Amino acid sequence: MNVTKFAIPEIIFGRGSMVHVGQCARRLGAKRVLLVSDSGLERAGWVDRVSEILEEERLEWAYYGDVNSNPRDYQVRAGALVYRETGADVIIAIGGGSPIDAAKGIAILASNGGVISDYEGANRVERPLPPMIFLPTTAGSGSDISQFCIVTDVDRQLKMSIISRSLVPNISIIDPLILLTKSHELIIASAIDAFAHAVESYVSRIASPFTEIQSLRAIELIIRNFKSALDDRSIDALEQLSIASTAAGMAFSNAGLGAGHALAHSLGGMFDILHGLVHPILLPAVMRFNAPACTEKMGNIGRLVIGDGRHTAEYFAQAGIESLKKFFANLDVPLRLRDILPDRSPLEQLARAAVGDACNVTNPRHADVEGLLGICEEAW
Amino acid sequence: MNVTKFAIPEIIFGRGSMVHVGQCARRLGAKRVLLVSDSGLERAGWVDRVSEILEEERLEWAYYGDVNSNPRDYQVRAGALVYRETGADVIIAIGGGSPIDAAKGIAILASNGGVISDYEGANRVERPLPPMIFLPTTAGSGSDISQFCIVTDVDRQLKMSIISRSLVPNISIIDPLILLTKSHELIIASAIDAFAHAVESYVSRIASPFTEIQSLRAIELIIRNFKSALDDRSIDALEQLSIASTAAGMAFSNAGLGAGHALAHSLGGMFDILHGLVHPILLPAVMRFNAPACTEKMGNIGRLVIGDGRHTAEYFAQAGIESLKKFFANLDVPLRLRDILPDRSPLEQLARAAVGDACNVTNPRHADVEGLLGICEEAW
Repeated sequence: MNVTKFAIPEIIFGRGSMVHVGQCARRLGAKRVLLVSDSGLERAGWVDRVSEILEEERLEWAYYGDVNSNPRDYQVRAGALVYRETGADVIIAIGGGSPIDAAKGIAILASNGGVISDYEGANRVERPLPPMIFLPTTAGSGSDISQFCIVTDVDRQLKMSIISRSLVPNISIIDPLILLTKSHELIIASAIDAFAHAVESYVSRIASPFTEIQSLRAIELIIRNFKSALDDRSIDALEQLSIASTAAGMAFSNAGLGAGHALAHSLGGMFDILHGLVHPILLPAVMRFNAPACTEKMGNIGRLVIGDGRHTAEYFAQAGIESLKKFFANLDVPLRLRDILPDRSPLEQLARAAVGDACNVTNPRHADVEGLLGICEEAW
Repeated sequence: MNVTKFAIPEIIFGRGSMVHVGQCARRLGAKRVLLVSDSGLERAGWVDRVSEILEEERLEWAYYGDVNSNPRDYQVRAGALVYRETGADVIIAIGGGSPIDAAKGIAILASNGGVISDYEGANRVERPLPPMIFLPTTAGSGSDISQFCIVTDVDRQLKMSIISRSLVPNISIIDPLILLTKSHELIIASAIDAFAHAVESYVSRIASPFTEIQSLRAIELIIRNFKSALDDRSIDALEQLSIASTAAGMAFSNAGLGAGHALAHSLGGMFDILHGLVHPILLPAVMRFNAPACTEKMGNIGRLVIGDGRHTAEYFAQAGIESLKKFFANLDVPLRLRDILPDRSPLEQLARAAVGDACNVTNPRHADVEGLLGICEEAW
């Protein structure tokens, strides 16, 4: 095996674990916290809850909540200004991937200066970031675990992938009780995003034994718990989805992703689509494109999806993809690109933007513009 | 699930990965490194190799190598003096568990003062430690991953367990090529130690889904690769043992151990025995003692040891223990306490020392002096 790296934050996991956020901030030397979130979490009362806990710990805090789904470059810039003006020394984010990615962008600008597009790509963050604590409120993005930060460049209409070891926070506090307050659609979108992380990281060019075990585990847990989490709102099943999302985060943070996420980022940059809902459209086509380059592994995924038996890896790979397509078809989500795009005209631009995305580098099969366009056509 | 914590160092893994130690030290802000090791590793040339790499990175370094197997309190004290006198700012250890545990003790005294017995038990280290990088040279102790530090208190004739989150190093660099230079006996002792870590952490009272997966994986990898690592010196198999030891380290660092390690520590304090060679003697008796309190889990271990089939958990638990005993009997190692102790007279003192060991707290079945004595009698 080549030399491989594996880095994750300290994880505090469990029902009610949110209550530890004050002590954690204190342990990281906080005097004044910048709390980052969004209006949905404000309305749901979670921002108040975190600020109460910080006050119980006698910590001062400032708040930045102007964050969209698919957070924008100007929002990151404005947040960094608040960080500096309020003299904050630790960043806490509570939210799905968007507030957490915004917080990472804020941390980069606060300590490294410049504009956020300066850091697009891998390993371009040089100076250390302020201490960070993230509380994910969805079981999906994995941003609370990962080295990834996705920010939309509004002018260029694309989602930039910023990848750096220093974007792994100090502490991730994962409290599955928060999932009880989430909508049906958000639980679906998040779980599918985690599933895509698991599949893409498992077959990544730089997957290692440390990441593969986490990828497979996430796939298994999502398949086993998805229905009960959705239909019964079972906290046990939601907790298992949280564990799956965390495992998938450990995997993709260290193994990278692939063509599916590269295309999802270019789609999300051009059209403001809920990220997780792109995968039912793209993932089967991406898996089919990749299968010849990683048949054994695609077979292992298929085995987890359809159950064990006496078949070849090729059989399991194809049967797994077909079974996944049926699984997605039973959800109330768009299944084809034509369901979300006005016409075929943006496809070439989508493929051109995706080919340069940092996620495309670790795709197991070389995917040039033509290859990515082929995936889009199959998903049309 | 209750709130659980999971913390591991950044891991750099792979053949030849040792070469990164200089850049890593530099990244942690090193100007002058204290390098800790022992005479065996000096003779094997590994200390020279690390110091060369540090010099290539233009780092100054001082050396402390007066470390025994089962490192002593006075060795830790002397090392801390070297750290202070040489003005070191980062600690690097290369070795098995002994130099790494000594380095941890040195780090505690260098930054927190006092004597090492002040820190015996859990969570007694208050001030932050100097940055630490560990290069394990055995696939066993897991000390390069863990929150544990075991140091012998010479006056009291016992091995103190010191457990603290701050004992997790910043970086663990795991280079399986080093294992090619290790003796048959050391590979056996190390792999069995990792196996005991995996078994005891899996059934620990505070095991979590984050640790259980690592425990099971370590058990499986050790069973599958032990023979080829020993008989053929296959680097592939040795690498798998390294992965197993790392996985077991992730597990026990966060889930704790049990009565087996509590007794191993009291034995090691009274008699200077190679730690890993104690487990073939103790582990089957400990597993039998614990089985009624965790039958399902012992059954899962049994399934990994003897292979799947249609049997009850009770059957797999017992058959697994029997199969393990046979496995140990095929190695050239002591199998009974009577093989390593002069007579039965120390047994009661052994049990009394073990009952207070921090590892005993997480044993799945309450083990008082009588229970521990029963285990010793069964292992006699």
